[in-house]
Amino acid sequence: MELSQLLPKFKIEKIIKEWLEEDIPSFDYGGCVVGSDEKVAHLLGKQTGVFSGSVFFDEIFKQLGCKVIWFIKDGEPFSMTHGPDKNKPQVLAHVIGPVRNILIGERLSLNILSRSCGITTQGHNVKKLVDSNGTWTGKIAGTRKTTPGFRLVEKLALLTAGLDTHRMDLSSMIMLKDNHIWSCGNITNAVKNARSVGGFSLKIEVECRNQDEAIEAIEAGADIVMLDNFNPQDLLTVSTYLKQHYPHITIEASGGITSSTITQYALPTIDIISMGNLTQGVPHIDISLKIQKQ
Amino acid sequence: MELSQLLPKFKIEKIIKEWLEEDIPSFDYGGCVVGSDEKVAHLLGKQTGVFSGSVFFDEIFKQLGCKVIWFIKDGEPFSMTHGPDKNKPQVLAHVIGPVRNILIGERLSLNILSRSCGITTQGHNVKKLVDSNGTWTGKIAGTRKTTPGFRLVEKLALLTAGLDTHRMDLSSMIMLKDNHIWSCGNITNAVKNARSVGGFSLKIEVECRNQDEAIEAIEAGADIVMLDNFNPQDLLTVSTYLKQHYPHITIEASGGITSSTITQYALPTIDIISMGNLTQGVPHIDISLKIQKQ
Amino acid sequence: MELSQLLPKFKIEKIIKEWLEEDIPSFDYGGCVVGSDEKVAHLLGKQTGVFSGSVFFDEIFKQLGCKVIWFIKDGEPFSMTHGPDKNKPQVLAHVIGPVRNILIGERLSLNILSRSCGITTQGHNVKKLVDSNGTWTGKIAGTRKTTPGFRLVEKLALLTAGLDTHRMDLSSMIMLKDNHIWSCGNITNAVKNARSVGGFSLKIEVECRNQDEAIEAIEAGADIVMLDNFNPQDLLTVSTYLKQHYPHITIEASGGITSSTITQYALPTIDIISMGNLTQGVPHIDISLKIQKQ
Amino acid sequence: MELSQLLPKFKIEKIIKEWLEEDIPSFDYGGCVVGSDEKVAHLLGKQTGVFSGSVFFDEIFKQLGCKVIWFIKDGEPFSMTHGPDKNKPQVLAHVIGPVRNILIGERLSLNILSRSCGITTQGHNVKKLVDSNGTWTGKIAGTRKTTPGFRLVEKLALLTAGLDTHRMDLSSMIMLKDNHIWSCGNITNAVKNARSVGGFSLKIEVECRNQDEAIEAIEAGADIVMLDNFNPQDLLTVSTYLKQHYPHITIEASGGITSSTITQYALPTIDIISMGNLTQGVPHIDISLKIQKQ
Amino acid sequence: MELSQLLPKFKIEKIIKEWLEEDIPSFDYGGCVVGSDEKVAHLLGKQTGVFSGSVFFDEIFKQLGCKVIWFIKDGEPFSMTHGPDKNKPQVLAHVIGPVRNILIGERLSLNILSRSCGITTQGHNVKKLVDSNGTWTGKIAGTRKTTPGFRLVEKLALLTAGLDTHRMDLSSMIMLKDNHIWSCGNITNAVKNARSVGGFSLKIEVECRNQDEAIEAIEAGADIVMLDNFNPQDLLTVSTYLKQHYPHITIEASGGITSSTITQYALPTIDIISMGNLTQGVPHIDISLKIQKQ
Amino acid sequence: MELSQLLPKFKIEKIIKEWLEEDIPSFDYGGCVVGSDEKVAHLLGKQTGVFSGSVFFDEIFKQLGCKVIWFIKDGEPFSMTHGPDKNKPQVLAHVIGPVRNILIGERLSLNILSRSCGITTQGHNVKKLVDSNGTWTGKIAGTRKTTPGFRLVEKLALLTAGLDTHRMDLSSMIMLKDNHIWSCGNITNAVKNARSVGGFSLKIEVECRNQDEAIEAIEAGADIVMLDNFNPQDLLTVSTYLKQHYPHITIEASGGITSSTITQYALPTIDIISMGNLTQGVPHIDISLKIQKQ
Repeated sequence: MELSQLLPKFKIEKIIKEWLEEDIPSFDYGGCVVGSDEKVAHLLGKQTGVFSGSVFFDEIFKQLGCKVIWFIKDGEPFSMTHGPDKNKPQVLAHVIGPVRNILIGERLSLNILSRSCGITTQGHNVKKLVDSNGTWTGKIAGTRKTTPGFRLVEKLALLTAGLDTHRMDLSSMIMLKDNHIWSCGNITNAVKNARSVGGFSLKIEVECRNQDEAIEAIEAGADIVMLDNFNPQDLLTVSTYLKQHYPHITIEASGGITSSTITQYALPTIDIISMGNLTQGVPHIDISLKIQKQ
Repeated sequence: MELSQLLPKFKIEKIIKEWLEEDIPSFDYGGCVVGSDEKVAHLLGKQTGVFSGSVFFDEIFKQLGCKVIWFIKDGEPFSMTHGPDKNKPQVLAHVIGPVRNILIGERLSLNILSRSCGITTQGHNVKKLVDSNGTWTGKIAGTRKTTPGFRLVEKLALLTAGLDTHRMDLSSMIMLKDNHIWSCGNITNAVKNARSVGGFSLKIEVECRNQDEAIEAIEAGADIVMLDNFNPQDLLTVSTYLKQHYPHITIEASGGITSSTITQYALPTIDIISMGNLTQGVPHIDISLKIQKQ
Repeated sequence: MELSQLLPKFKIEKIIKEWLEEDIPSFDYGGCVVGSDEKVAHLLGKQTGVFSGSVFFDEIFKQLGCKVIWFIKDGEPFSMTHGPDKNKPQVLAHVIGPVRNILIGERLSLNILSRSCGITTQGHNVKKLVDSNGTWTGKIAGTRKTTPGFRLVEKLALLTAGLDTHRMDLSSMIMLKDNHIWSCGNITNAVKNARSVGGFSLKIEVECRNQDEAIEAIEAGADIVMLDNFNPQDLLTVSTYLKQHYPHITIEASGGITSSTITQYALPTIDIISMGNLTQGVPHIDISLKIQKQ
Repeated sequence: MELSQLLPKFKIEKIIKEWLEEDIPSFDYGGCVVGSDEKVAHLLGKQTGVFSGSVFFDEIFKQLGCKVIWFIKDGEPFSMTHGPDKNKPQVLAHVIGPVRNILIGERLSLNILSRSCGITTQGHNVKKLVDSNGTWTGKIAGTRKTTPGFRLVEKLALLTAGLDTHRMDLSSMIMLKDNHIWSCGNITNAVKNARSVGGFSLKIEVECRNQDEAIEAIEAGADIVMLDNFNPQDLLTVSTYLKQHYPHITIEASGGITSSTITQYALPTIDIISMGNLTQGVPHIDISLKIQKQ
Repeated sequence: MELSQLLPKFKIEKIIKEWLEEDIPSFDYGGCVVGSDEKVAHLLGKQTGVFSGSVFFDEIFKQLGCKVIWFIKDGEPFSMTHGPDKNKPQVLAHVIGPVRNILIGERLSLNILSRSCGITTQGHNVKKLVDSNGTWTGKIAGTRKTTPGFRLVEKLALLTAGLDTHRMDLSSMIMLKDNHIWSCGNITNAVKNARSVGGFSLKIEVECRNQDEAIEAIEAGADIVMLDNFNPQDLLTVSTYLKQHYPHITIEASGGITSSTITQYALPTIDIISMGNLTQGVPHIDISLKIQKQ
Repeated sequence: MELSQLLPKFKIEKIIKEWLEEDIPSFDYGGCVVGSDEKVAHLLGKQTGVFSGSVFFDEIFKQLGCKVIWFIKDGEPFSMTHGPDKNKPQVLAHVIGPVRNILIGERLSLNILSRSCGITTQGHNVKKLVDSNGTWTGKIAGTRKTTPGFRLVEKLALLTAGLDTHRMDLSSMIMLKDNHIWSCGNITNAVKNARSVGGFSLKIEVECRNQDEAIEAIEAGADIVMLDNFNPQDLLTVSTYLKQHYPHITIEASGGITSSTITQYALPTIDIISMGNLTQGVPHIDISLKIQKQ
């Protein structure tokens, strides 16, 4: 299964067009100076990382009339080669086309890749922390804490790292928080109202502060309960109870969980651990595109 | 001078609409459940930072029919209050309006603010490093290494920190790099060609690897020379020579400069230090929007 | 809960703008002739129906600077009044504003209402057929067999009739049909692949031709099984077996079910009956907008 | 003359893109699961009808990188084949391409064809009613009672049935109704005002309630008079008078005319009979797209 | 009748937004420098002209939150006042609002008005040439020789001068030229084909090179014949013949007619004289917007 | 250096699409009548001019599936050929493709070329006036007095004539006029504020009424001073003083300069002469596209 197939052609075409327009509102002066001779550029991974974002890179250079040859696939690692004299970056791809078009796509493509690979690399590392633990069968998930307008890149980067995107947007899954519950009077009403608009095809998740709320949510028909801001001990107690009595319910742990603490939350009774930091403040990966002098 | 006035109404309206649409492609199920009772929400700064991005926050809630009351201005610091019992976040603003509309705007507005304040805070700290030095009169500048589609937020955040945006896009200032120079034969031709399309109203910057290139660029009519990847010692030597002979030329130092090394580059002969890290991999600031229970 | 709150302001604004543009590509000649005197128009229900679509009507006339006063709510019935002399249509709303603007909105608003009320009315009637039966607790659902570009109106009309929208689009719920299963080798692989991209927040439904397929789908982790093109007897047998062994599974009956046959499918073991005819070939409701002569 | 040539490439490209986007707001989960193996799908006509809409079908699959081979042309009839064992649908076309792309286009293309063929089939049948009569040389026309956003499909479907589209929109022909006449004082003024903005290149039609109004409209310069809500007898009397005195005037009969009554209105003195029901509440035609198992 | 009512609100809003965006692709630096103090600006007519375009001016400043007070109406003349000391421009309007917003709208509004008034003024002068002649009852019309994207302004400017817009676009009236006729074999077929797609609601015009072609066109059902590139003598002969035999036909004279020659074409048998020069190479009118120092 | 390379593919694609849509809002009736037989059309220069705009012409016919063969390049002159019998227009290009598509592009392409060549031709002539003078090394520049939505064509036409575009828009160069200066108190503050937002990469120009203002602007850091509405004598005096004391400053003369007076302003101390008339009220060039009868 190729994850890039999640993005239909018309969708990615539109996104890339808008981003190209951001960078050239009127004339492309530099492009006119540099001209249209055909050149080859090397995409270089200049540090250790896990690759993602090829579908965006492909579309940028397709729109610009350039050809891309890949030497890496999404989800594969890359790193500097440490040679005897000096360290050499790994060649990830070649781009061949008119030099002005390579330059038009250069900064946009690197801005995407450096962020996308950053998320995939970090996500991969967080997953390894838990996997090394060995037995946990749950999944680590992102959140909606993404960069406005850039969500598809970030969610795809999470998937490429083997993580779960969590809901894409407010139209995907209904999440009921304290405000929804207050306004409906109680959890039961909130879930009932949510079901009547969301219907059978959408899941409903309820943010719960304790076991009683979780039970009310489940009895009312919630598909998922989120145990928010629980310490690991309480989380274990409550989730064990819930799994015993409601084995079909999905349980999500959330709230301030970080790389340092995640292994404490990876309990057998927890299905999902969600973390905002997977798409916020993530270190970028240093990637460059170097046109080859002939 | 209010920096938010850099953004005309029609521009910010359009951006915010697109970002709101990203989050609700079809129905707003949760909004329907929660209803339209009027509520007050508090915007809370949950860590130490320097604020920016109010113009986007204002527009989001204006489009959603909510009122915003500010207790902080762009460029001002905020932090947790450390009380006797527990630490309390600083209240940055109130939002008043229909609860479903507050919730529509919640995640988008926080996704903007956490990134914008992150950049402003980090930019402010980098600037302080150099300012504490005292005598340097140059400016620290960003780059085009911004998130696709999100550049205006990030550039404005830099300005709010007292930094320079550097050129906005490929239509703003002409920067001539090795590829432009190869394709034109030499620096002189490249600058001449650039001038003939860019005209008198655009600046031309040339990336130079040594003093000879810098001299050729200046003689050909460049406005700015970028001394790329120089170590501080070489940078001092070359820039001193150039400033003596061409006092009107702007000199930019660039290439791998970080917080740790920036003070070594803040030389009296350097006008601009540009850093990609000001808008890449920047830690976000934790801000939340809490609807008040009545 | 007001269903019109499912549509955020920015979404409905955009839709209505596009539809208004369809009807006036260049000049509004008639509008110029008729001028801008303020007039009152009556929205008239000229046959028996159940009302829906007010949110679109409101937005059209808001954009046109007119005021709307309602005498009916979404979901309520209306009909001709049969008087002694002649039958009079029911006044559903008043529209007050410049006459040219009322005329700009007239045809668009009626084109929406006649279709929306048509779907709600028919949906309501189909639901009554089953409700009169009395004991069935399942839900009748639509499909994606909607008019291109007009789906939100049609889905909202279904909800207003008390029906289920079924999934909104291909990004909402994953439905695995024969093609997905072939290409993955078997149902188990298909469900596993779907889960790995859809994650925990999306439901997965599998179209099954018999009990064995249904069991395989459920064991693989499907949330919903669709029993497609079963006769009522087979449907009862298979769904009874499934509900006994997998009580948490949702079972949908689909395939050629019509108003004439639906009561045979409304079995206690069936959760959802979906019908394409709820949004296809639906008779419209005759509604008009009559400007009052003063 | 091929009617599909009424739609320039840029127009149909844009429409189809928007409709595809409606169905996949974020990820195409099913498409990722099913993959990109090449498949052949058969477009099947599952009931009797007259075909139309090929230009939209072609564009959908062109955008999706699929090839279409047609076995039917717009305007031709199709039906089930009644064989000895069982009835078989007629194969209308083959679609060849990546299976995920066939599935992306499946529902959209069928939603268009089932509606388009529905209108063409019904229009064809209404036309036959009148044609069988034999001698009438007038034309049956649609109205602006079309589905918002979907008008081009519906108008083209009418043309394919051999009917007249009537005016496309408010910018095409000026139609003066009671409101225009009140606001201008009388018919003469209304026509004069309309002519002064519409100029010589637009036709002007006036809705008339009796012979006197029709005469006033014609004398004022109207090109067409619409005799609205006349019974057949009055229609004959008035139209006969008008044709004798103003042979160049086009006369349209309108108002509540249906399939059952149309032959009574197909008088030698009537040029146009317009009917809202040609594009409202029209039964759809059952068409499916079946991917072939290999 | 106010001609500005030809433009519905949603249409003009969209146009103006796009034009404002053209002028500020990223930041409005000058606006930030100048700030938002309220100012009054005077719109000044600095030469003799006939005014038009107020609807665009109004919309620009409405979008920018400014108020406009008019001292002139569309269609009225303006000129410099020749005083004893010096000549003073005529004050056409006041604009009141934040100074940065006045400046955002300044250049765009003047770019529109100088062109719109240019066309109206010249159109008015051409019309006077013919009117002074006295007895001609025909109309002078523009063409589709307009500036791409700017057609609505130019067509409205023509109407304001009392001229005819001619057809707005290729969807408005069908004009058959030599190519259409060749491809259909002859004029009769071309008109018949045009009627079958255009229906009764669109006019058909045929470009004719001589009387025989004109007769064939009329007999085939054309509404208008264009006598193209005739000299005045031939034009008189042919049009006289046609008017005698086909009094209901509209006759248009076209082809290289200019201000110098138009009176020779204003024959009693000619209904329309069309001229490309009414919207091409038209001298602009000098108008400025002067912010008042306080 | 090819100037057409200033326009990236995605930018010109979008512009041309919008302009094509302006001309065919619904159906292309004429196109359907004329059909899709392949034809050859000749682009004809019917008067003397300098050519420009090929990049737009190319894109139009590329979008319409036609091939273009050029016999002229941008910047080259063309004219009628004066033969013994009659004058023949110069063939500038051939267009080959389906006849209906040639006709769709005909009017749009000519509307662009006639305006673009008009500007280039006039610009070229103005430049010759000054060049014939011989020694002036400055440049003639346009202004922002362009047609809304059409600026890129007009600016490119100026460049093709060998002129300077001046700033493209309000985001390109900061120009400080009287209002900016009032609102900041004085020139020094205005320049300082402008620099703080525009940074080092944007030029700042100050409109000055006399030498003192010019000196203040320069001392404050302006890059360019515009001497506005100076007579040639004063211009010489002031610019000579400024060049002596501030040799690096660019000096622009502006204000009411025309073809008749420009040579008086082409002083050795003046770098730039800007003229609004280069893009306003410019005579168009007569160009036509003639489909060849076969």
